[in-house]
Amino acid sequence: MAPRKLKTAISGLGRMGARHALNFLHRTPRCDLIAAFSPDPKEIAWARTNLEPYGVHLYTNYDEMLKHPGLEAVVVATATTVHAEQAIKAIKANKHCLCEKPLSTTVQGSQSVVDAAKAAPHLKVMCGFSRRFDASYRDAFSRIDDGSIGRPSVFRSQTCDKLDPSGFFVAYAEFSGGIFVDCNIHDIDLALWFYGQDSIVKSVVAVGITAVQPELRRHGDVDNGVGIIEFWGGKIAYLYSSRMMAAGQHDMTEVIGTEGKITVNGNPSTNLVEMSEPTGIRREIPGDYYGRFREAFVTEASEFTEACLENLKLPFKLTGAVQAVKIGAALQESLRSGKKIEFDETGRRLTEEWVPPAKAKL
Amino acid sequence: MAPRKLKTAISGLGRMGARHALNFLHRTPRCDLIAAFSPDPKEIAWARTNLEPYGVHLYTNYDEMLKHPGLEAVVVATATTVHAEQAIKAIKANKHCLCEKPLSTTVQGSQSVVDAAKAAPHLKVMCGFSRRFDASYRDAFSRIDDGSIGRPSVFRSQTCDKLDPSGFFVAYAEFSGGIFVDCNIHDIDLALWFYGQDSIVKSVVAVGITAVQPELRRHGDVDNGVGIIEFWGGKIAYLYSSRMMAAGQHDMTEVIGTEGKITVNGNPSTNLVEMSEPTGIRREIPGDYYGRFREAFVTEASEFTEACLENLKLPFKLTGAVQAVKIGAALQESLRSGKKIEFDETGRRLTEEWVPPAKAKL
Amino acid sequence: MAPRKLKTAISGLGRMGARHALNFLHRTPRCDLIAAFSPDPKEIAWARTNLEPYGVHLYTNYDEMLKHPGLEAVVVATATTVHAEQAIKAIKANKHCLCEKPLSTTVQGSQSVVDAAKAAPHLKVMCGFSRRFDASYRDAFSRIDDGSIGRPSVFRSQTCDKLDPSGFFVAYAEFSGGIFVDCNIHDIDLALWFYGQDSIVKSVVAVGITAVQPELRRHGDVDNGVGIIEFWGGKIAYLYSSRMMAAGQHDMTEVIGTEGKITVNGNPSTNLVEMSEPTGIRREIPGDYYGRFREAFVTEASEFTEACLENLKLPFKLTGAVQAVKIGAALQESLRSGKKIEFDETGRRLTEEWVPPAKAKL
Amino acid sequence: MAPRKLKTAISGLGRMGARHALNFLHRTPRCDLIAAFSPDPKEIAWARTNLEPYGVHLYTNYDEMLKHPGLEAVVVATATTVHAEQAIKAIKANKHCLCEKPLSTTVQGSQSVVDAAKAAPHLKVMCGFSRRFDASYRDAFSRIDDGSIGRPSVFRSQTCDKLDPSGFFVAYAEFSGGIFVDCNIHDIDLALWFYGQDSIVKSVVAVGITAVQPELRRHGDVDNGVGIIEFWGGKIAYLYSSRMMAAGQHDMTEVIGTEGKITVNGNPSTNLVEMSEPTGIRREIPGDYYGRFREAFVTEASEFTEACLENLKLPFKLTGAVQAVKIGAALQESLRSGKKIEFDETGRRLTEEWVPPAKAKL
Repeated sequence: MAPRKLKTAISGLGRMGARHALNFLHRTPRCDLIAAFSPDPKEIAWARTNLEPYGVHLYTNYDEMLKHPGLEAVVVATATTVHAEQAIKAIKANKHCLCEKPLSTTVQGSQSVVDAAKAAPHLKVMCGFSRRFDASYRDAFSRIDDGSIGRPSVFRSQTCDKLDPSGFFVAYAEFSGGIFVDCNIHDIDLALWFYGQDSIVKSVVAVGITAVQPELRRHGDVDNGVGIIEFWGGKIAYLYSSRMMAAGQHDMTEVIGTEGKITVNGNPSTNLVEMSEPTGIRREIPGDYYGRFREAFVTEASEFTEACLENLKLPFKLTGAVQAVKIGAALQESLRSGKKIEFDETGRRLTEEWVPPAKAKL
Repeated sequence: MAPRKLKTAISGLGRMGARHALNFLHRTPRCDLIAAFSPDPKEIAWARTNLEPYGVHLYTNYDEMLKHPGLEAVVVATATTVHAEQAIKAIKANKHCLCEKPLSTTVQGSQSVVDAAKAAPHLKVMCGFSRRFDASYRDAFSRIDDGSIGRPSVFRSQTCDKLDPSGFFVAYAEFSGGIFVDCNIHDIDLALWFYGQDSIVKSVVAVGITAVQPELRRHGDVDNGVGIIEFWGGKIAYLYSSRMMAAGQHDMTEVIGTEGKITVNGNPSTNLVEMSEPTGIRREIPGDYYGRFREAFVTEASEFTEACLENLKLPFKLTGAVQAVKIGAALQESLRSGKKIEFDETGRRLTEEWVPPAKAKL
Repeated sequence: MAPRKLKTAISGLGRMGARHALNFLHRTPRCDLIAAFSPDPKEIAWARTNLEPYGVHLYTNYDEMLKHPGLEAVVVATATTVHAEQAIKAIKANKHCLCEKPLSTTVQGSQSVVDAAKAAPHLKVMCGFSRRFDASYRDAFSRIDDGSIGRPSVFRSQTCDKLDPSGFFVAYAEFSGGIFVDCNIHDIDLALWFYGQDSIVKSVVAVGITAVQPELRRHGDVDNGVGIIEFWGGKIAYLYSSRMMAAGQHDMTEVIGTEGKITVNGNPSTNLVEMSEPTGIRREIPGDYYGRFREAFVTEASEFTEACLENLKLPFKLTGAVQAVKIGAALQESLRSGKKIEFDETGRRLTEEWVPPAKAKL
Repeated sequence: MAPRKLKTAISGLGRMGARHALNFLHRTPRCDLIAAFSPDPKEIAWARTNLEPYGVHLYTNYDEMLKHPGLEAVVVATATTVHAEQAIKAIKANKHCLCEKPLSTTVQGSQSVVDAAKAAPHLKVMCGFSRRFDASYRDAFSRIDDGSIGRPSVFRSQTCDKLDPSGFFVAYAEFSGGIFVDCNIHDIDLALWFYGQDSIVKSVVAVGITAVQPELRRHGDVDNGVGIIEFWGGKIAYLYSSRMMAAGQHDMTEVIGTEGKITVNGNPSTNLVEMSEPTGIRREIPGDYYGRFREAFVTEASEFTEACLENLKLPFKLTGAVQAVKIGAALQESLRSGKKIEFDETGRRLTEEWVPPAKAKL
């Protein structure tokens, strides 16, 4: 008899949601995608063609979907603003839950999901930090964990998007939490992974500019940000995020230890093709985040599914998602206030709370 | 209603067969793997654990498997020596057939499969030239097809295996057809793809050495071979194959045109990790062919399946497999005879047939 | 008649001084090296073998050397602590002067050289920012200057030394001015070059750790430092310096503009050799700064010499050296104080002066 | 007293000659360039500006130049057709001689220089195989010599020029000896270096096409050639030469041994700059041979000079130049005749001499 499959639903069928849906449907051997929710008629239309023929029931009401008979797990891939709410509802409806990152743009919002999960310890609740499932990052982690670079001490990481001349991300910035919460949240999560989930932040400081989209200032955001995180115990992470990479998506990380360095994706490339032309030698790079992490999402879907079915330990703790948002939000505040923010050795904030002026202004 | 799935069986569950089986089982959305055959008890034992639980019926008799109710397609992934026979049986049993490369180590053997397929034009019969499904090769082809390098004129390609100190490939050489048929067959197929399937060979010449496995001479084979193929119309392909790459598998190709060059996999790498160590900067490369072409096999499975179900044109013609064997076998003969072999403008051989001495000797 | 040569003396024959001496002696066509000074008997012994045979007069007293008949120019390559003093003496003795970087570890010290130079406008006085003469940096500058990346907006640069287990640099740190003045001074100078020499600093902030040499704390220094510089007008530079690169020297820079990015030395390498070994593919990287910038020093010597002889404009202004020290010293202060330091739009410091505790402590 | 300098003359001030002249004049510490010869008024005009002011006496008669008082050494950098004649004259006039490659396009011509040199064993006579002085090739040789790749067994090397649409090389082909003598002579010399100067050729075979310059057929030449050399003892070299590289000069070599591989210049680049643009990531490569080997020529000049002055052993034997021409000319013959050429274990030719048809025709 074939192994049991996990009856799964997906919420949100936008750019990322649709990709998740197809991965759970076709590339996750032990998943049985049975339901999908979207409030958006265009997304539902897409689902009629791409999901329904495979037996996926479509819903325009999230609460209704949660009642779908036999449903065991929910993937939350909607807009960031409703992540926390939907994740909590799923947990309360006794469903396992994979919630896209960030759980929320605020620490409190993120913590509320953690609290709900704590109250239902039999459920698997995971934040979708896709890079944790990337084969290269895993290889890097394993090497570092084996001591190959000595004591990891300096961490550099960036999340840089291809320039989108449409300026789509300006409107998006209103709800994204800002570039450090939206983009660098991945890098922060990686820092916590590589340095140890129990690392305590000592200070954060950030600066940024609006090189291509001055309108971002309206939302207290920038299109290029640089930040530094100090951790207690002699560790530094420094981060860069950008919305204006000409060549394409370039997310990369390097971890410098006392005996070596590991770099992940120092030389991005779409594939293994190189062109020699009168202008020199050229290669292309992925146009977007998904182009870089396509396979990581597939692995994420499979591992989440296995963990639910077999009651396995998830590869990382949900509480890390709160830490990451705490640091990301502090960087974003530092960007806005112009102040460095300090924390004591327990992680308690020392710098007093910053009160933004009536109208945010960089 | 979900799209119909193709009821498929697999023959051969060795190294490559097992991988095919798992791909057809788990990573081919429209395939329903229903049967598997192997004469080998160890392979059957593996299948009991990995295939049977998913509803795959196991056979130790190929002919019996062909009678499995509802069976529509067969994947032949057994030893090279029985490829042609099994493929022909499958075709005669009215099954679509994906046969691993080469169809046979001889031109006649390969042609017999083509003849069988011609007699059953409603069936899809494809030779498993996996590189044709590789995203990088496809990208390269598409760029060249668009004229980006002018007229392709010189083609260099290599198939180089990691040194296997066990010498496994010595025994294997007895039936493989030799290094030009076993390894460079891929490169020859690529040359025919990039230069046009109707390219006519003008001459072939090859040399080789046994640098690490002198025993190969018993089978008229070598562990490092270099060959040159001239095509009528001013085109050259030169090939290298090796069984002794220290760092790992390195299969690569470059196509030089009158206005540019395209390289595929000039700088091999297992993943995106780079290590900086006291000895310098280092990256690892795949240990075997599958490590390089993993995703190509998945694509191959899907496209073959779709073509069968939807009666789509296969991405390349079966006759090319005969051409490739013709050239590969001629290179192997040139290696053994020490003679260059010439062909006229219709592809008819001009150089008289070589009669090997009683005991092959390089 | 052969073009006239510049009668030149060198002060300091330590590691860098000896290299300068040989460059001015053998690789600078229009230089006539006639004198050399060192207070160190070991260095003088070296000079007896390597310089004196070519007619270079040796001195153990700097002031005496300045009186050498016909002397026209002096290269100051002694310890940082006496750079300014020797440069000023040379200028007052009516000699052209190439002074190694930094002019001084303090703004006042550096300014005193500028003041002396201003009083002798007929003399060529240059600070030895060797990277300004590197072919790759010049190519990068020229491309950026031509607008190829749009408006340069984010600048990342690092100066990373190979780990020296001898801990030589700990003693050295007492007088070096700290890692941001000693190492990142190059990166700061590059930022000023690429952003325009008239760029006004808006803020600086820095953090650092002692991962391998805790003794550095005695001198208020670190072995790994990260700093951010904001410039007025929407430009950011972020810097990294390290004393513990396992693989070797890695100095690199990237400049991100609104339409592209230029990277200099993203993939360091000693030469064009790549090794494929059972452990993968490996290349070595230079062991020290000189291994990276060897040719830049030769170009520097030639261009300085030509400028003196032909009364040509120097490639960059001496005042930039003061700006660079101002920023480097501020980063070093921020590292020590833990505070971000701000400047108004004229570059006047806003943050009040930091008074270090009796004993510097990170 | 400064070390004695070698009184040197240069013959030929064309593209390469002029570069040699400047290297010997400005970048060779122990050389005193005192004379130069050219029959070409344009070259003499260039020398009036660039050499004469430095005390170089100019001649338009080679024999006259040889009589220049005190002359000790001659650099022959004229057209290939007069290399041998001028070298022999220099030797007979008792001068050391550095002769550009090839000594001659024929074996006999090359041998005549060797014979002259044998008769004057106190003189240093060297063929200008510039790659022997390249730091990367030397590093590769030294690693291989240390056993780092086991037994070198397969050698791949190419000399590929940037496409010159002017077709300059067509006229040039009349006297160059053909692409295998003119271009691949370097690769052949490298093969002899890496495999041992006493390696005995077993067979050669070559093919070629005229992809961009059909006129080359008039001279029995091609614009793209591929050749294979077998050496006795189980070693293979395979070579490629091209006149139509779009991106620029790409000369590279890889040596594959039983335990590893060494690659020289697998990824060519003009400098350390990489451009990220909307079309991807790009680097430029050198436009010509000199751009790749600039520093090797400087080293060559210095080492030749030192060897003459100090009676040191030259880095390689003159007889190798005959071997290289023997192999290169045989490849060129194979290209024209379409036949493989075989040699016995003493290197004596087995295949009978080919008599070209009245009008060479590929």
